[in-house]
Amino acid sequence: MATATESNALDCNLHVDYVIRYSFSDVDQSHAVAQLEKLLSTLAHVGLQTEIRQGDESSLLVFVRACNKQLQRAIHRSRVRDWLYGIRNAEPEPASSVEAQTEAERLRVVGHMITHPKEEGGADITPNHGEWKNVTAIFALHDEQTNKKWMRDWSQKTFLSDEDLDDIRNKFGESVGFYFSFLQSYFRFLIFPALFGFSCWFLLGSYSILYALVNGLWCIIFVEYWKRQEVDLGCRWQTKGVSAVQTKRRKFRPDKEVRDDSTGEVRGVFPTTKRIKRQLLQVPFALLAAIALGAIIATCFAIEIFISELYNGPFKSYLIFIPTILVSALVPTMSAVLTTIATKLNDYENHETNDAYDVALTQKIFVINFMTSYLPIFLTAFVYVPFASLLVPYLDVFRLTVRPFVSKESANATKSHFQIDPARLRNQVIYFTVTAQIVGLAMETIVPYLKQHALREYKNFSKKKNGRSMPGNGNGDKESPERQPAVTFDDPAEEVQFLKRVRNEAELPEYDTTEDLREMCIQFGYLALFSPVWPLVPLSFFVNNWIELRSDFFKICMEFQRPTPVRSDTIGPWLDSLAFLSWVGSITSAALVYMFSGNSQHGPNGEPTDIVGWALLLSIFFSEHLYLIARYAVQMAMTKLEPPNARKERADRYLMRKRYLDSTVRAETDEDQGKDDVVTLSTETSRASLEEDARRASLHGSDPAERFWMRQHGWMESAKVGAGMIQAQPAKEGIKKEQ
Amino acid sequence: MATATESNALDCNLHVDYVIRYSFSDVDQSHAVAQLEKLLSTLAHVGLQTEIRQGDESSLLVFVRACNKQLQRAIHRSRVRDWLYGIRNAEPEPASSVEAQTEAERLRVVGHMITHPKEEGGADITPNHGEWKNVTAIFALHDEQTNKKWMRDWSQKTFLSDEDLDDIRNKFGESVGFYFSFLQSYFRFLIFPALFGFSCWFLLGSYSILYALVNGLWCIIFVEYWKRQEVDLGCRWQTKGVSAVQTKRRKFRPDKEVRDDSTGEVRGVFPTTKRIKRQLLQVPFALLAAIALGAIIATCFAIEIFISELYNGPFKSYLIFIPTILVSALVPTMSAVLTTIATKLNDYENHETNDAYDVALTQKIFVINFMTSYLPIFLTAFVYVPFASLLVPYLDVFRLTVRPFVSKESANATKSHFQIDPARLRNQVIYFTVTAQIVGLAMETIVPYLKQHALREYKNFSKKKNGRSMPGNGNGDKESPERQPAVTFDDPAEEVQFLKRVRNEAELPEYDTTEDLREMCIQFGYLALFSPVWPLVPLSFFVNNWIELRSDFFKICMEFQRPTPVRSDTIGPWLDSLAFLSWVGSITSAALVYMFSGNSQHGPNGEPTDIVGWALLLSIFFSEHLYLIARYAVQMAMTKLEPPNARKERADRYLMRKRYLDSTVRAETDEDQGKDDVVTLSTETSRASLEEDARRASLHGSDPAERFWMRQHGWMESAKVGAGMIQAQPAKEGIKKEQ
Repeated sequence: MATATESNALDCNLHVDYVIRYSFSDVDQSHAVAQLEKLLSTLAHVGLQTEIRQGDESSLLVFVRACNKQLQRAIHRSRVRDWLYGIRNAEPEPASSVEAQTEAERLRVVGHMITHPKEEGGADITPNHGEWKNVTAIFALHDEQTNKKWMRDWSQKTFLSDEDLDDIRNKFGESVGFYFSFLQSYFRFLIFPALFGFSCWFLLGSYSILYALVNGLWCIIFVEYWKRQEVDLGCRWQTKGVSAVQTKRRKFRPDKEVRDDSTGEVRGVFPTTKRIKRQLLQVPFALLAAIALGAIIATCFAIEIFISELYNGPFKSYLIFIPTILVSALVPTMSAVLTTIATKLNDYENHETNDAYDVALTQKIFVINFMTSYLPIFLTAFVYVPFASLLVPYLDVFRLTVRPFVSKESANATKSHFQIDPARLRNQVIYFTVTAQIVGLAMETIVPYLKQHALREYKNFSKKKNGRSMPGNGNGDKESPERQPAVTFDDPAEEVQFLKRVRNEAELPEYDTTEDLREMCIQFGYLALFSPVWPLVPLSFFVNNWIELRSDFFKICMEFQRPTPVRSDTIGPWLDSLAFLSWVGSITSAALVYMFSGNSQHGPNGEPTDIVGWALLLSIFFSEHLYLIARYAVQMAMTKLEPPNARKERADRYLMRKRYLDSTVRAETDEDQGKDDVVTLSTETSRASLEEDARRASLHGSDPAERFWMRQHGWMESAKVGAGMIQAQPAKEGIKKEQ
Repeated sequence: MATATESNALDCNLHVDYVIRYSFSDVDQSHAVAQLEKLLSTLAHVGLQTEIRQGDESSLLVFVRACNKQLQRAIHRSRVRDWLYGIRNAEPEPASSVEAQTEAERLRVVGHMITHPKEEGGADITPNHGEWKNVTAIFALHDEQTNKKWMRDWSQKTFLSDEDLDDIRNKFGESVGFYFSFLQSYFRFLIFPALFGFSCWFLLGSYSILYALVNGLWCIIFVEYWKRQEVDLGCRWQTKGVSAVQTKRRKFRPDKEVRDDSTGEVRGVFPTTKRIKRQLLQVPFALLAAIALGAIIATCFAIEIFISELYNGPFKSYLIFIPTILVSALVPTMSAVLTTIATKLNDYENHETNDAYDVALTQKIFVINFMTSYLPIFLTAFVYVPFASLLVPYLDVFRLTVRPFVSKESANATKSHFQIDPARLRNQVIYFTVTAQIVGLAMETIVPYLKQHALREYKNFSKKKNGRSMPGNGNGDKESPERQPAVTFDDPAEEVQFLKRVRNEAELPEYDTTEDLREMCIQFGYLALFSPVWPLVPLSFFVNNWIELRSDFFKICMEFQRPTPVRSDTIGPWLDSLAFLSWVGSITSAALVYMFSGNSQHGPNGEPTDIVGWALLLSIFFSEHLYLIARYAVQMAMTKLEPPNARKERADRYLMRKRYLDSTVRAETDEDQGKDDVVTLSTETSRASLEEDARRASLHGSDPAERFWMRQHGWMESAKVGAGMIQAQPAKEGIKKEQ
């Protein structure tokens, strides 16, 4: 019995809300003690209870739990804020009766109590920043039992239910919930193109115009469906409009201080025009990225063509790996360099809010990703195939490099044998949509997991060897050769297991949905841009994404700290990237289908000869505008189909308004009570006012307006006068009767 | 002195808010009397005072004035509603202290008191509809003196100031205000292209690529600027979000009654999918419109070409007018037929709200207008010039028609003389952008005014002849040959002038901004689509629109009833039309510039010979995507430049929220009062809760979580434990000191 309770309490993390890791490795002891005291008193100030345990030899773990009363107040404050910003419809109930609805809400609010600025009722702890540089991590603890249960459950079903998604959101917050919902919607949507693609591949082969059209339409519908789904989820999870409430960036550096006339507050301002000017640097950056990556990829591509299709000399079987090695080495390096530049550029743009910063950064990263992911296929489809016979002779430049090593004859042996490889494009697409996906999955999930395990094993081993407990300190010192003498943790016996787990989690990195969304967005791009080349692409993605969803969840649970719940009503700037890719897809699909479908005439080197410039451009023109018209139609239709939760939300809002208005009207009616007949009342009112008017008229002399309004007293008299006028029309009536 | 007061009172319309025209020409007297009584009592019910005067021989004029108290309540109700829908930021003050801020607000609210449904506190008078079929008009009276003053003022200045626009809005409501603001913005924006176009025309001539680029960019900036301006005006006039509050269409026919689960109300529903299916009829309609109008225009065009450039037989000087006559007769007829079809189709689509109905109708009307306005120029530019030498021989079909009348020789006389007229395109553009604009202005403003005057003169004349007062009854009976014996109106002497004016205004039609906006939108289209042909187009429009603004105001004041104020935060669906035209402009401009600029090589018949298909398509492709990129950039920049009134509105909202949140926080602090030190408090709180926990722990046996949280009592103890742990790291400190 006792063990059951114990294990249960352990699973629910001993009621710990957050763990704060306080590192003191690079400050002197007295300062560290003073700062720790300040940290603890600040936390106590906002109503957080604390317990301290040893972290590793240079850090402490501060366990934080919110007092009930203060938490209620914080939740209430957060809800009032939501209500003022229109995220909630109803004015929230008073603080004393408030309760966190979900684990995510509780964690979010407690997180705000720790990190929000003082004027918003928080403790203003900013990890790794300014005064709180020693606070190196703030994280909640994983709910291991639930995580394991979900992983087991999900491995046995094809689709997650809405309730499963709600559970994810209740556990990890809306941001992660949105990612999984997106993945789930995308996965579900892939059924149709997977089946249709398979049929097309079986019946029509590649480059089918029918497949390209259906695929384009599917892309439109998916993107628009997801926009609608975002609204629906926003209403379901009560986060609609959350992205309108933006948090200020800590690193924003204002240009000048301006006193706002209307609010009377002094606030930092950075002129928008100045920022726009800085943003213009994006243009040269995009060009730089395109040229740098383009040059690397094109060169490696050319070397590959040369070696695989022209060169026939010695060591060919080894040399053939050179371009692959070059690409694998140079492209990630260049991407990393460019990403650093993009981040610098983004910092320089000095955005005021976190959202604006993320959007701007995503745009820049997208340019880099677009180049690395799609350029090789673009080169094959639109440079290699049509122009190879023109360009290949120039590849002889590489022969000069090879010459020193091989004999002349063998180098020149196969000069005239060049033949365009028609399967190259398809093989490339298959590589990117199957092989690369599998490799990516492994690199992303399995490899880090194995690495972690190996590392822990190693540590255990060295611990045993040293006869002391010795967890890594998470700062990358693990491999450092000089081993500092570690302290022995005198953990209470019953906490040993728990603290071991917490120390492990403290070392994990923070999770961010951006990377996973980027991956899905790039995957969608292959589908939109190149799937007519090989209509099995959606089938491959369908299978891949079933695993992806589960492996991503596994990854979050095992390889990252529990994500701090963040509210969200969208997957953010990636949505624009999806729309953009589907648009570009309408151009590439048309070009691919025109250039390669039923293209039976080939020149001597295998190049297509019947590609006509104007026909190619015309098909692109038609395809693109067909796409835009279809998109417009789908958008129109979608705006008219209200998602169910949005309808419910609207009904709630309507009810709330109606109740308020009714109460206003009732108040008015109450005011009128005691007077029986409203008609008489009105008559009396007007009579009274008229009598007053008459008095005023006699005072002011003759006011024509007053005289005008005094001719008929009350509506009864007006009616009588009117009746007289109507009856004074005998002729008209006479004519009627005559007829 | 007395006369001055009198004339002043007359100008301010004797405090009349609205005039209701009650016609009884087609009902029998007793029914008419009963209905009138009902009308008056209903009006009195909602707090409206009435006076009755004779209208003409078959109508009465019911003058309506709102009682102060009821008006205050109605204004209050309207403001509460605005507040609930987020149009106002602050909760409105109580009804007793409310006052209408502008004439337009007063009229709008009084109008609502008359027409709104009973449950919203109105009298539910629906003119020309259902029970109130006899109510043929509800209108406010013009403020003649102010109107005249403004016309005088405006004729002496180039630009209306913001205050002038505010005045229009205060007088006629936001909808008219938005039209004039748009016209004013457009006019102001035309300065740049007028000057630039003139310079280009002078220095570079027609078809300058520079002009086309600048013009395209200007179109983008103008459209995006206006979108921003709408936001600004919406904030300035406090109508932001007004279009979200949609009024239900009276003619909406629900498919079935559905009981809403959440609101508990039974309401009529028409399935959206059914409506979307019906809306698909738009596609055949657009095709029908295109084909019908296209056939007429193309045929007349062909006849014109034949007669002016091929035919050289007798009667040429007369025959040349045939196509013009045909176009003038057939195109408006066909447009009218198509408009009727469009309206029927729109009714069939059965929209639920007035806004949705208007949007859908505007789209259909736009298709018709696009064809009638731009097709002739399209034909000349993209059919006649490039393909004339191919097509003209087929025009011989007309020769067969002419043959019976003329001798063979003369008919065949000039067969080989055909020569493409390079000036035709330019002349056509000049016709549409100068001549047609002037003619339109005259037809729209001057002709109706003269007609009205002539009609009144004629009536006066016939009145004098009959020796009785005899105003028209406005039902088109004026020309009816049988003259009914009219009653003599026994108007009070001092009201004669006033009632004469009211009777005149009662006969005027209702004003609607749609028609004027349509006109401006079509005008903008010429600029966006064809102005590279003749860069003086913007100059012509600049001059034209100076007059247009004034003449439109004149028109509203003199030829229409005073518009009932309608709130609005946009110029509505026309904005989309503007964006669409500017997009199409990017395609046509590129094509025109490519085809005609520096095009020195001509074939034997004057056709251009160096137009290459792929180059034309490539320039269109580039131009369109350049346009889209530029639009994206401009949109991004615009969203970041917040309009001044929007900033003010945001500051107000922020202040309101801050005040509310501060009061929440203050309430919490008040709760805590009496306890001096919050830190101690927190410590005490946690200690107290811990003691309670301890009690619970002893009750429930050993709960590890409780034991965990009981190890350190309060933050002070945690700090001590933490300090101990930090100081227990001598090695680390030692290393530091050694270094």
